[in-house]
Amino acid sequence: MTYCLAMKLSTGIVFCSDSRTNAGADRVSAFSKMHRFSKEGDRDLILLSAGNLGTTQAVLDALHRDIKATPERSIYSMSYVSEVADYIGMLSRKIQQKYAPSREQAGFDPEASFILGGQIAGEPHEMYLIYPEGNHIRPSERYPFFQIGETKYGRPILDRIIRDETDPEIAMRCAVVSMDSTMRSNATVGPPIELAFLPSFDSAEAPVNYKFEQNDGYLRAIRAAWNDEIVRAFHNLPALAAPEDPESL
Amino acid sequence: MTYCLAMKLSTGIVFCSDSRTNAGADRVSAFSKMHRFSKEGDRDLILLSAGNLGTTQAVLDALHRDIKATPERSIYSMSYVSEVADYIGMLSRKIQQKYAPSREQAGFDPEASFILGGQIAGEPHEMYLIYPEGNHIRPSERYPFFQIGETKYGRPILDRIIRDETDPEIAMRCAVVSMDSTMRSNATVGPPIELAFLPSFDSAEAPVNYKFEQNDGYLRAIRAAWNDEIVRAFHNLPALAAPEDPESL
Repeated sequence: MTYCLAMKLSTGIVFCSDSRTNAGADRVSAFSKMHRFSKEGDRDLILLSAGNLGTTQAVLDALHRDIKATPERSIYSMSYVSEVADYIGMLSRKIQQKYAPSREQAGFDPEASFILGGQIAGEPHEMYLIYPEGNHIRPSERYPFFQIGETKYGRPILDRIIRDETDPEIAMRCAVVSMDSTMRSNATVGPPIELAFLPSFDSAEAPVNYKFEQNDGYLRAIRAAWNDEIVRAFHNLPALAAPEDPESL
Repeated sequence: MTYCLAMKLSTGIVFCSDSRTNAGADRVSAFSKMHRFSKEGDRDLILLSAGNLGTTQAVLDALHRDIKATPERSIYSMSYVSEVADYIGMLSRKIQQKYAPSREQAGFDPEASFILGGQIAGEPHEMYLIYPEGNHIRPSERYPFFQIGETKYGRPILDRIIRDETDPEIAMRCAVVSMDSTMRSNATVGPPIELAFLPSFDSAEAPVNYKFEQNDGYLRAIRAAWNDEIVRAFHNLPALAAPEDPESL
């Protein structure tokens, strides 16, 4: 399994991903799911991937082959982030169709999802969720984040904290908490954790990125502090009053 | 969708369920998913149900028909809670098999899951999760709770709070928080919320139960307080340090 998330803030985009992949319980390894495509002053894009590793690797290989073979028709020449999203969706769909006849094999699923975010010069910074079917959407204004993979355990904290105006450090910290809740409840999501912030071109913020290994001190500190804080928060809640009619069931 | 949970404490068992059912977006209604089978001084059992409403209603109808027609071979005559779990699993499987030929119809799934808990005189209080396949399990000692239906959003708080020795009021409050997180993230889980505690026969605790309607004051108070507490807890977490190598991605 995988867990990736991205948040579109007014100052830029935060990206976070785990690195665990598995093809059956005996085959667990770590692959980066965060891929950057950058040309100084012209474009800075990050692609997060989840789903079938064969499909996501084939999509990335195709993107890199294009850059070498036909740079004038590649992720480095397109004028809009949405155009890039469209192109990635088309590649993903084509690769999945190639393996469609194997879908009847038990447990085989060639589907893959992507989050694409970043900026191309002359355009605002943008973020898209690319579905397995190839189409893509922008985030809502109220909840400006996307998740792919194992999304549910880490969702509630994003709903509560992430808004367009959230400070980048707060948003990155929230991404780590969301990732930690997911790793705690699903053993197939695991470190290293990659975390990055791409500021928009007109922002005063600097780009930053982190990689947290299994025993990273910050990951451990967040995990311990969050558990203590949640338990304390829980015990501050109003207690249940005695029921009016205790035996009505 | 549905969300039901139960917690086996040393002093008894807590049960909680929502009441939303839907068969397509146009057909949303409220049905109780909490069913009590009680014979003073002899047995006190609660059954929670999730999944296909046709299957769960047919299982309940069969249980009630037995009680009338053949009380000597019914949920009121069996000697062990595990025997009752076995019987419910067998009924559920039989009803699902009846509709198996319709499984190929898009979106049709006759599966149902159950949580059964309570006590029969002479035996300890017990709790079982009954799978759609008809077999059943007891909870682990470390995490003595079960969930059925939409389980993921409400899981992390249970992992953190619920243990064998947890006080019943704390466990019931935790069930409400878990239910609230689920309702917040999944619109198809909704009130009324039913909550009950069945103490074990040798416990000094009294049985209690609550029903929270849509605008219940306690539900609203918990929702507001939990949101405030979580946001405050989050802002108490250690901040990210500046990365050592900000542009290594």
